[in-house]
Amino acid sequence: MTLRQKIHEVIFEADTPAGRLFDVVLLWAIALSVAVVCLDSVESYRTQYGDLIRIFEWVFTILFTAEYLLRLYSVTRPAKYALSFFGIVDLLSILPTFLSLFIVNSQYLLVIRILRLMRIFRVLKLARYLGEADTLSRALTASRHKITVFLGAVFGTVVIAGALMHLIEGAESGFTSIPKGIYWAVVTITTVGYGDISPITPLGQFLSSILMICGYGIIAVPTGIVSVELSRAQEHHHIDQRSCHACSREGHDNDAVFCKFCGERIERETS
Amino acid sequence: MTLRQKIHEVIFEADTPAGRLFDVVLLWAIALSVAVVCLDSVESYRTQYGDLIRIFEWVFTILFTAEYLLRLYSVTRPAKYALSFFGIVDLLSILPTFLSLFIVNSQYLLVIRILRLMRIFRVLKLARYLGEADTLSRALTASRHKITVFLGAVFGTVVIAGALMHLIEGAESGFTSIPKGIYWAVVTITTVGYGDISPITPLGQFLSSILMICGYGIIAVPTGIVSVELSRAQEHHHIDQRSCHACSREGHDNDAVFCKFCGERIERETS
Amino acid sequence: MTLRQKIHEVIFEADTPAGRLFDVVLLWAIALSVAVVCLDSVESYRTQYGDLIRIFEWVFTILFTAEYLLRLYSVTRPAKYALSFFGIVDLLSILPTFLSLFIVNSQYLLVIRILRLMRIFRVLKLARYLGEADTLSRALTASRHKITVFLGAVFGTVVIAGALMHLIEGAESGFTSIPKGIYWAVVTITTVGYGDISPITPLGQFLSSILMICGYGIIAVPTGIVSVELSRAQEHHHIDQRSCHACSREGHDNDAVFCKFCGERIERETS
Amino acid sequence: MTLRQKIHEVIFEADTPAGRLFDVVLLWAIALSVAVVCLDSVESYRTQYGDLIRIFEWVFTILFTAEYLLRLYSVTRPAKYALSFFGIVDLLSILPTFLSLFIVNSQYLLVIRILRLMRIFRVLKLARYLGEADTLSRALTASRHKITVFLGAVFGTVVIAGALMHLIEGAESGFTSIPKGIYWAVVTITTVGYGDISPITPLGQFLSSILMICGYGIIAVPTGIVSVELSRAQEHHHIDQRSCHACSREGHDNDAVFCKFCGERIERETS
Repeated sequence: MTLRQKIHEVIFEADTPAGRLFDVVLLWAIALSVAVVCLDSVESYRTQYGDLIRIFEWVFTILFTAEYLLRLYSVTRPAKYALSFFGIVDLLSILPTFLSLFIVNSQYLLVIRILRLMRIFRVLKLARYLGEADTLSRALTASRHKITVFLGAVFGTVVIAGALMHLIEGAESGFTSIPKGIYWAVVTITTVGYGDISPITPLGQFLSSILMICGYGIIAVPTGIVSVELSRAQEHHHIDQRSCHACSREGHDNDAVFCKFCGERIERETS
Repeated sequence: MTLRQKIHEVIFEADTPAGRLFDVVLLWAIALSVAVVCLDSVESYRTQYGDLIRIFEWVFTILFTAEYLLRLYSVTRPAKYALSFFGIVDLLSILPTFLSLFIVNSQYLLVIRILRLMRIFRVLKLARYLGEADTLSRALTASRHKITVFLGAVFGTVVIAGALMHLIEGAESGFTSIPKGIYWAVVTITTVGYGDISPITPLGQFLSSILMICGYGIIAVPTGIVSVELSRAQEHHHIDQRSCHACSREGHDNDAVFCKFCGERIERETS
Repeated sequence: MTLRQKIHEVIFEADTPAGRLFDVVLLWAIALSVAVVCLDSVESYRTQYGDLIRIFEWVFTILFTAEYLLRLYSVTRPAKYALSFFGIVDLLSILPTFLSLFIVNSQYLLVIRILRLMRIFRVLKLARYLGEADTLSRALTASRHKITVFLGAVFGTVVIAGALMHLIEGAESGFTSIPKGIYWAVVTITTVGYGDISPITPLGQFLSSILMICGYGIIAVPTGIVSVELSRAQEHHHIDQRSCHACSREGHDNDAVFCKFCGERIERETS
Repeated sequence: MTLRQKIHEVIFEADTPAGRLFDVVLLWAIALSVAVVCLDSVESYRTQYGDLIRIFEWVFTILFTAEYLLRLYSVTRPAKYALSFFGIVDLLSILPTFLSLFIVNSQYLLVIRILRLMRIFRVLKLARYLGEADTLSRALTASRHKITVFLGAVFGTVVIAGALMHLIEGAESGFTSIPKGIYWAVVTITTVGYGDISPITPLGQFLSSILMICGYGIIAVPTGIVSVELSRAQEHHHIDQRSCHACSREGHDNDAVFCKFCGERIERETS
């Protein structure tokens, strides 16, 4: 095994002790570096521990740069890795520190490192969690058409509600323009309700009440959609794994005795 | 094919290349014109680009007016189109510009053009999306009686809660009248919670807490209703009414060609 | 038919034309009188139309008093009616006007008349709506134990969270006492979020964030409970109506061929 | 029966009249003592009834201390009790009073006594309520992997959203640091929306709108998860594992005595 293969094993795999140790250390380093970026943004910490934070920041950046270069070196097809999701995230998580030499405040973009923490699933019992994420994303994918229709309805509602409220309430209540009105309508229909803009005229309050009660009903729709799809996505785990010996097709019910496509008898799974 | 038939094909159909191109251009024009109306309402843009916005507005209005007249001309029964949902929306989406010559601010009503964007479903894979919208609306229709009972309960609750809070809190906290109290109760029970009116007396805060926890439970009811109905509406797609001629058993999948219980060929429903 | 029987028929039944007319007139009178009470509470209307409102109020009260006395007279067992739910509501909906001669502001209690509007279900296709209300209440009854456990958990959480925040935040942020803290915790966990009291210390904001994300998960529990029970309550509509000829027991599955209690063959429903 | 056994029976069991009476008295004492702690924190009550509250506090503490010692004395393995959940809660619910002699404000920690109220389930029809709590916790346990994935997604979203808003909005709107931005993102995504921090720049309001609509969809995920798991946890109560000896078919109801397919008698599971 060449050095390059060894590095690949340590960095990319989580099954060997060395690989596992590397992953755990990396995750802690990522978490710490995100915490440092967060603390750096707090005025009082920056003035007091500014130098220490700057040192930490550069240590982490140099470590992550070294790791990125080693990944590029050890992988068989560097271009493919560099253009993969994690490859781009790895690059984006070191660039802002170098950029901060030229552009003020760009170091805050370093929180993108949080995405690198998704590697945590590789250390935990990977398959199980990915399976769950898969069930969730399958449920969402299956309901994407319904969600599109739903989002379209929400979009149309907030634009019309925003324009109406701009007309009715005017600038005194904070509805200074239609975009402001749309922002208010989104804040209201999602039941967030900051209260930075709120209707003060009786007519405006009446229309808002109607919008809220509608929003109340609207929240039921995506919940219902996801519930139903999640329930179906989960049932697919229980679907029969048998394939017909004659036509090789799958998707038979559990109580099926004959293939529903060609009429051939199919065997029990356990036999 | 007469000119009138040709115009009809281009304007009303989305299957031919010309019709499709017309639809796509129309959708972009609608989206742009809504964006222009929104920008027009922003003070700073109006003062700076007022003339440009005015020109755009009239160009779009003239285009849409021409389109409306062509639709009226090319359709076989103009009256029926003029009174259909899209016919009225098409008319309403040009009227406010002309009205704005006489009435101040009426141009904001132009956002009604957003409804014309519903034509977008004709360009996308229409049937699928309409099918989803259909499932959603079927679920809502099936549960309209439950939703009426539910809305009645909400209505009664907010009126009584609003009157009680007006009595308890009085004008200092903003509960200046029963309608204001009802507005507050709607804001609270839907969990929007602007905070423009909020209880300050201990008794008022205690009663609000109870109202909130109830509202919390109430939100579960429409969600439950829609979930159940959605789940049922969806099942109806998958039910197959065929029974096997040999063993008379039912419950076959839609794609089944042979009976899964005895292996006999089963006929299509439509044949 | 005596006069008393005739009055009974008109007032209590909704099947005859006279009874139906009476109910519709009554419902409009109730709705109007509630509207008058609401308007009466608005300062500007009271000062301007005070006398008119007062007259309307007394006309409605006299009408409703007459109706109440006629109900008492025409019903066979007056005591039973007087102590029934609607009997008490009918009485409470006239009392406050008389009380307002002695006690200031008590006329606002007249909004209790809104409960009389529940009679509306008698005029609409009664059975259907009552059936739906029945399904809803059956679902809620079936899940009352789960809801008790759930409310207990919410209650414990808000008390502990309220006390903790009172300790951490203190009086500057508005957490002046534990009851205030509990009120804040209820406002937060139900996602209402007025913002009249909100944490300002970093530790307080951190704990609030955790409370919010928990509340986020907690909202899922009652929704899930109601969905499941509603789905079950509805299924009971579809249960097989067959009873066994041998042992007369019901509750068989749709695919049952033999009685599950005594082993006797049971017939298909349609045969 | 020794005195120790008698004390054990009274204190730890709820089946005998004496044990039941003890439990009811204890629960009221706990509820009262929590109420006293809450009142003590209200400024006006403390100045007026300070001495009375102090006396009550010490009476309850002495009572609970005596109860704690008796529990330790009467139980066979004191160490095991002392380290159990309720043993620790019992200790924590008396300690703060003694601590308050030395440390200011520590008496507020006494609200931990609310946890002792969980003993209330022993007095109510225990089994039923614990069964429900069990169903709930089983549903949550079964979906813990999905909830972990979900919380991970929420965590990543709020960190990135918080950092972005800190960059865009800056200190004027209250986004003084990344942790503040994260706090705002949690307040927004959970739809609490205090309004103590809210975006004021157009770009910030646009991004917030997107975050809200996403949060809107995200709320559907845990609801769907819990619904599905709750529905499954409940079904497990009703599933019967018996198969008929004559025709080998399964799927019988729990109360079935004869096979519903062939009429043969089927045995109890436990026999």
